[in-house]
Amino acid sequence: MKIIRFLLILACSCNGASAALAQTTAIVGGSVIDGTGAPPQPNAIILIDGKKIVAIGKQGAINVPAGAKVIDASGKYIIPGLIDTNIHLFLTPAIDQAWLGKYEGRFEEIAAEAAQLALKSGLTTVFDSWGPLQPLLNARDGIRRGELVGSRLYVAGNIVGLSGPLGRDFQSGIQQATVSPAFAKRINKIWEENVGPDLLDKTPEEVRTEIRKYIGRGVDFIKFAESSHNLQAAKNNWLMFSPDAAKAIVEEGHKAGITVQTHTSNIESLRLAVLAGIDMAQHPAILGEREMPDSLVRLLVDRGVYCGVLSKTKKRIEIEKEGWRDTGGKGTSRSPEALDHWQGNIVKLIRAGARITLATDQGPDDPKFSYSVSPRLREDEPTRMGEGQFLWLESIVEKGMSPMDAIVAATRNGAAAYHHLSEFGTLEGGKYADLLVLDANPLENISNARKISLVMKEGAVIDRDRLPEKKILTQ
Amino acid sequence: MKIIRFLLILACSCNGASAALAQTTAIVGGSVIDGTGAPPQPNAIILIDGKKIVAIGKQGAINVPAGAKVIDASGKYIIPGLIDTNIHLFLTPAIDQAWLGKYEGRFEEIAAEAAQLALKSGLTTVFDSWGPLQPLLNARDGIRRGELVGSRLYVAGNIVGLSGPLGRDFQSGIQQATVSPAFAKRINKIWEENVGPDLLDKTPEEVRTEIRKYIGRGVDFIKFAESSHNLQAAKNNWLMFSPDAAKAIVEEGHKAGITVQTHTSNIESLRLAVLAGIDMAQHPAILGEREMPDSLVRLLVDRGVYCGVLSKTKKRIEIEKEGWRDTGGKGTSRSPEALDHWQGNIVKLIRAGARITLATDQGPDDPKFSYSVSPRLREDEPTRMGEGQFLWLESIVEKGMSPMDAIVAATRNGAAAYHHLSEFGTLEGGKYADLLVLDANPLENISNARKISLVMKEGAVIDRDRLPEKKILTQ
Amino acid sequence: MKIIRFLLILACSCNGASAALAQTTAIVGGSVIDGTGAPPQPNAIILIDGKKIVAIGKQGAINVPAGAKVIDASGKYIIPGLIDTNIHLFLTPAIDQAWLGKYEGRFEEIAAEAAQLALKSGLTTVFDSWGPLQPLLNARDGIRRGELVGSRLYVAGNIVGLSGPLGRDFQSGIQQATVSPAFAKRINKIWEENVGPDLLDKTPEEVRTEIRKYIGRGVDFIKFAESSHNLQAAKNNWLMFSPDAAKAIVEEGHKAGITVQTHTSNIESLRLAVLAGIDMAQHPAILGEREMPDSLVRLLVDRGVYCGVLSKTKKRIEIEKEGWRDTGGKGTSRSPEALDHWQGNIVKLIRAGARITLATDQGPDDPKFSYSVSPRLREDEPTRMGEGQFLWLESIVEKGMSPMDAIVAATRNGAAAYHHLSEFGTLEGGKYADLLVLDANPLENISNARKISLVMKEGAVIDRDRLPEKKILTQ
Amino acid sequence: MKIIRFLLILACSCNGASAALAQTTAIVGGSVIDGTGAPPQPNAIILIDGKKIVAIGKQGAINVPAGAKVIDASGKYIIPGLIDTNIHLFLTPAIDQAWLGKYEGRFEEIAAEAAQLALKSGLTTVFDSWGPLQPLLNARDGIRRGELVGSRLYVAGNIVGLSGPLGRDFQSGIQQATVSPAFAKRINKIWEENVGPDLLDKTPEEVRTEIRKYIGRGVDFIKFAESSHNLQAAKNNWLMFSPDAAKAIVEEGHKAGITVQTHTSNIESLRLAVLAGIDMAQHPAILGEREMPDSLVRLLVDRGVYCGVLSKTKKRIEIEKEGWRDTGGKGTSRSPEALDHWQGNIVKLIRAGARITLATDQGPDDPKFSYSVSPRLREDEPTRMGEGQFLWLESIVEKGMSPMDAIVAATRNGAAAYHHLSEFGTLEGGKYADLLVLDANPLENISNARKISLVMKEGAVIDRDRLPEKKILTQ
Repeated sequence: MKIIRFLLILACSCNGASAALAQTTAIVGGSVIDGTGAPPQPNAIILIDGKKIVAIGKQGAINVPAGAKVIDASGKYIIPGLIDTNIHLFLTPAIDQAWLGKYEGRFEEIAAEAAQLALKSGLTTVFDSWGPLQPLLNARDGIRRGELVGSRLYVAGNIVGLSGPLGRDFQSGIQQATVSPAFAKRINKIWEENVGPDLLDKTPEEVRTEIRKYIGRGVDFIKFAESSHNLQAAKNNWLMFSPDAAKAIVEEGHKAGITVQTHTSNIESLRLAVLAGIDMAQHPAILGEREMPDSLVRLLVDRGVYCGVLSKTKKRIEIEKEGWRDTGGKGTSRSPEALDHWQGNIVKLIRAGARITLATDQGPDDPKFSYSVSPRLREDEPTRMGEGQFLWLESIVEKGMSPMDAIVAATRNGAAAYHHLSEFGTLEGGKYADLLVLDANPLENISNARKISLVMKEGAVIDRDRLPEKKILTQ
Repeated sequence: MKIIRFLLILACSCNGASAALAQTTAIVGGSVIDGTGAPPQPNAIILIDGKKIVAIGKQGAINVPAGAKVIDASGKYIIPGLIDTNIHLFLTPAIDQAWLGKYEGRFEEIAAEAAQLALKSGLTTVFDSWGPLQPLLNARDGIRRGELVGSRLYVAGNIVGLSGPLGRDFQSGIQQATVSPAFAKRINKIWEENVGPDLLDKTPEEVRTEIRKYIGRGVDFIKFAESSHNLQAAKNNWLMFSPDAAKAIVEEGHKAGITVQTHTSNIESLRLAVLAGIDMAQHPAILGEREMPDSLVRLLVDRGVYCGVLSKTKKRIEIEKEGWRDTGGKGTSRSPEALDHWQGNIVKLIRAGARITLATDQGPDDPKFSYSVSPRLREDEPTRMGEGQFLWLESIVEKGMSPMDAIVAATRNGAAAYHHLSEFGTLEGGKYADLLVLDANPLENISNARKISLVMKEGAVIDRDRLPEKKILTQ
Repeated sequence: MKIIRFLLILACSCNGASAALAQTTAIVGGSVIDGTGAPPQPNAIILIDGKKIVAIGKQGAINVPAGAKVIDASGKYIIPGLIDTNIHLFLTPAIDQAWLGKYEGRFEEIAAEAAQLALKSGLTTVFDSWGPLQPLLNARDGIRRGELVGSRLYVAGNIVGLSGPLGRDFQSGIQQATVSPAFAKRINKIWEENVGPDLLDKTPEEVRTEIRKYIGRGVDFIKFAESSHNLQAAKNNWLMFSPDAAKAIVEEGHKAGITVQTHTSNIESLRLAVLAGIDMAQHPAILGEREMPDSLVRLLVDRGVYCGVLSKTKKRIEIEKEGWRDTGGKGTSRSPEALDHWQGNIVKLIRAGARITLATDQGPDDPKFSYSVSPRLREDEPTRMGEGQFLWLESIVEKGMSPMDAIVAATRNGAAAYHHLSEFGTLEGGKYADLLVLDANPLENISNARKISLVMKEGAVIDRDRLPEKKILTQ
Repeated sequence: MKIIRFLLILACSCNGASAALAQTTAIVGGSVIDGTGAPPQPNAIILIDGKKIVAIGKQGAINVPAGAKVIDASGKYIIPGLIDTNIHLFLTPAIDQAWLGKYEGRFEEIAAEAAQLALKSGLTTVFDSWGPLQPLLNARDGIRRGELVGSRLYVAGNIVGLSGPLGRDFQSGIQQATVSPAFAKRINKIWEENVGPDLLDKTPEEVRTEIRKYIGRGVDFIKFAESSHNLQAAKNNWLMFSPDAAKAIVEEGHKAGITVQTHTSNIESLRLAVLAGIDMAQHPAILGEREMPDSLVRLLVDRGVYCGVLSKTKKRIEIEKEGWRDTGGKGTSRSPEALDHWQGNIVKLIRAGARITLATDQGPDDPKFSYSVSPRLREDEPTRMGEGQFLWLESIVEKGMSPMDAIVAATRNGAAAYHHLSEFGTLEGGKYADLLVLDANPLENISNARKISLVMKEGAVIDRDRLPEKKILTQ
């Protein structure tokens, strides 16, 4: 047995092709926090054959085969790769006409770059719940085929029922007034495909037909809007789909064996969504300026709906409240009341035992197209790509969740929400070797999740310094 | 018996107070089209005692008491006073910040003036389905108490769920950006009372409570938005209330014994509204760019829902299509497809035997605050106060309704829709003497409805030249 | 001789009519700072006959006639009434469509109210350098005729060459897009009369003709724009009038014997204005983000141009810089560089011995139409009516001017700038008895100018508690 | 002598490199209209050696050398290549954020494509009077060096004093509000270099320094704004530069030996520009809604100022007036009065004998970014690339200019205005062989200028079917 110390694996060995050589790797001596909620296992060996974990056990109990590559993890902590259940590889603060004009035809490259930024920061799996479908599918498939390093990517495409980024649901009236119609139509079509706002004028059976067609495009899951996406107001959103139409969407998703989830932003839309049979609710804690009724908390818990909660740190909440005061409530920021209820509703969900998942809404920046904002508003920004997952863990622990539960939420639960727990999400034999080696114990201080010394995806050590490989937004 | 010819009654005799003297009046020699659909009765006598009709019959069959005032109607045609089931005493094209600033505190006077313009043009009863509640109630009560001449007025106040006129539902993003928040809030509150957009964030039971409270404010009927009111798009409107919330609204209205109706603009919202139990649908033919499904036509007919259809003349449709072409589809005008489906859906409803009522959306002008538009767009404008009802009659006959049915729709049906048929709507004994004496036969040419030689409301001849008594917008 | 203490004079005695009784008043025992820059005269007697000062001298040196009303000012300080050389009775932060709609037809009443607020706060004379001409003339004449209490008022009407308040020079593109043209035209006309933006397309001789006509309207002085008034930028303003046109304006003003002044905001426009022969420059220190060249400082000094400088306190400058940072430079606020140069240029003018006058741009508030701003931005706000003159005095002393010079600038220089020094501006025999009795010495601390115990205008003690008499904006 | 008929020259022979082989070409048998105003010369021979004309004379009087390439032009008409003195290779109707984002970094390619579209339509020389400097210089130099086929190109870069395309001078407030500052700044800088709006805050000497620096960047001529460029108004434009600053600009241009011209839009700015010593005035006939005073006409004629007039056909004027009426004067279109004065002022200039040049403001289209406009507004559109020069010729003849003078204006005068008459502009020995062979006589009907059978630039026959070589906007 040849002990080697931490080794920078060459780029070519990162992708699936090289992993296909089925090299055996042993990670030796670390404390394993396996994502199931079980107590940490100190001095463990994780034995990996090719992409998958073969066995995990105490040192001595497991035999490391001769010729195996050995990674010394003594004094370190190993957790499953993080899973962000609500990411947008495309949602930059700069997403406006000029930006879209600039990158038209290159959306796939941007998705690839963002998937690499995600992987670099410890996210081995991400679920993109809003973006341009075909470019995202292309990036997803490139990663799947091993042609591209990047987070394992699952794609919803459009939020069913919403317009594209230059349409009414993402732009104020002022901005819409300045778009050339030919360009706006072309861009919006990339997002909307056949599931844009026109669905609102359709009957439930017509909606069903479109969903079936959309699933046929190859999406991994369905997200539909049950509340409108009103950029200019944090409250009083409209409803989107009638119960019959919502049920048709859910049924078609389930027939295809995929998770169906919703965008909602008030009590009644969330209730209708749950009654329609959704598997997962994105940001269920956002309910205008309202507290979540206990009956609704119970409904979510009883039906086992996964809750992708967007959680902010206390510091961030303070900053946003200051911003509200400084500007007299201008802009799209939420009122202090809305913020307090939002975060308070997360606490209610945690206490009631809801199934929580890490969900951040994070996406990449493009400084070349920056909007000037005060530096203060860039602190603890939960949607900043590569930072969101750590802020989420910190904020969720602030809200009373134990670090162990926080890790389960950020790993196992995400996989379970999307029906992929048999493949990844915990460190168990037979699953993909997606894991992070940390320099310090995250159970002692959840911020230690930031201290990543190694990211492994499907058995391959990721050369994080090389990511992103092709710099576009990060140029 | 003293025969007197057409007589200008003095102002003091127009109002209820003088009618209380219970003078007997006989309208003699005209052809009576009584609004029930029955064939015209030539050479008839209408005997009126005070405010009400005592008897109608052939000359000779009815005795005109000595001392009765006799109105010679020989060669003329008598129809019931017209009933507009969808009017807005307040909806001027000029309704913007400056206009609202100008008239703040004088809304009641504007409502009174508009009710007089309506009466002057033959509308003896109007149902105001959107406006500032308290000012409208004041105008209504002044007319009821006989302190004010004007159309008999029934008031809904706000469209439940919508913002006031300076809020999101009636102003584009551009306009909202320029309103001083203090003023906008104050004005919006006058419309919204407790049934504005905040209802969207409430539970069905909370909605019920607010509706009950709102009914307690003294409204005559309830109109709620089941589609959003999206000024910037003729299609893809959002839903407003969940089925449970909609049912709560309908139930509370019915408990209070009043008509409940909806604003809808697409297929699914109209279907939900009907299923929620509404009595009446405003503009059910407007369904984005869609044809009304036969199943929905049947549902409306089977449930006996009254349909206040907004009908445009062929000439108007051509003008609006031209406008669309000339401007490349700018502004809020509807696409040629939307216009064709809208008008075509009215034809479908007529053919299926739906209960149609005259409904115009008409309101007064204020030239002092005019927006420059091409003169072409002022032709056959269906929402121009005093003109709308005639254009409606002409357009509905163009669509294949018989002139007799058109008159029934514009009189009897309106009263029936609002549960007032026992009081007015047809010319029958025991009902209010609300009627128009026409110079030519409307059954031969529906445009003859324009040839009004006399308007009587509650037995009193209206001195139309004196209306409006207090000129505000018409100044 | 009957000594009476401070006496509340009845309202009827405040106006010119009662003063016409030519009562003799003696203010006895105070220290007189007469506005000429001469050292204070302690224990003085000011003898007033009717509206005018008869004599000022040491106690003992002047005989107080029997029957004279005596005001005991011992321990107090007397300065001339303050003169604001740049005020806008009409410039409220709320000046938008709704506000203008609200008060259309009542502009004269607003002007009257504001002139009373001004007098109440110690301004016995104000020069309104932008506002609706006819309403301001009416208010002015009402005050002159003694029908109305208020600051002595001089009126320029429009800034020659600029649009009215709903035109391009005072509204952003966004706001202009939402005005009904009929209303905007009507309102703008009240300001523009014949000297609006159309002048820019005229020849110098045509401009001359219009100016002559405008002077014939009864204005007291002429202010013309030599820089554009670009609401959206603090720099890079355009030029307005060619040298020939500017000269024509100045010549016509001088022929009529009135002061001609300018609005400018950069170096070249100020230079052109001075070369054209102006008597006074409003806010000459505002030069985009530039320091005033020494040559321009010299030109102003050599030509004896009066400089109405808008001076801000250090605290205010800090607040505005913070606001700039907090919002990333959004809005119309000026950059830190612009602010620093602006205030620095005032220092340069002071040091070079330029003729400085109190000028504030202050105007009234209307809380009924408030725009929400952070409370921080309401502190030390130099344009807040009744507060501006004190902040100006404090800020100008902060910049190195002596309290004595500050008082001269705020009294004598204003009268001199407008050719009225023979009537008022200093406390000297033969001039109007416009004066303030202060409780503490303003030469020790300029903030003591705030401690007003009595305001006298034209010999009449003002009952400040009664002002404003007719509450409109202050309602 | 070998007679060959019309020959498609291969691409490689079009550029200067191949022309350097100094092949002799003879164009034989056509009627030559040489651009000097001289009567046509029938049956002429044009003898060309390499890039230049050697001789022109009657058949028989000139010897065609053996081995010369002979082009048979019998029955045809030959005029000098057309010269557009006001073109914008970059001014597409689509120039907005998205478009600029799309092509950022590729501006040079767009300029090249447009220069090829120009050449294809008979413009052998164009003067680009507004565009992004460096990309245009690159395109110019590529053409000069013979690396690229295209119109001979002269470049002004920015209009001195104006902002870039995303700045205030080219975008409404609404559009500016939606630009990301980082992008806008980057794009604007490409246009503005050191001669943007900041010049307005500079002294004449500082302006002089910047102009000198800008000339050092390699511009071929200087265009400065003496009127502002106010997108939202056709009248009441501001002034830009004081007389001293304007003189400084002109002097620096003249020191460098280049033409100085202006953008103006009212009487006074044009007068100031002429007095400052400009060589050429762009669109001098545009004077708001004013007729040009006779004194100004005389000034232009006496000083020999070249006038690049933008002339519209009668049909176009009618269309624009209709558009004004249809939309109630919305948008940026000009009032009927403005249009009439504009075109009438051109007639005044023609009659007074002013030096007129072909000037169109034309630029390319990009259908991928089209703004929907009514098809009617695309008819006789004078700024449509490749069409503008023919509409100009037709419209100028409509205004009373003889076809012969129109051809002189479109050829000789353009070269003279820019001091290049010794090189091109007429068909004379020693000048570049820039010419068009037409199938019909333009003196009989100026529309025959459209019937181009051959374009020759610098002696090389242009293969028009191959242009543009690299399709970008025309894709």
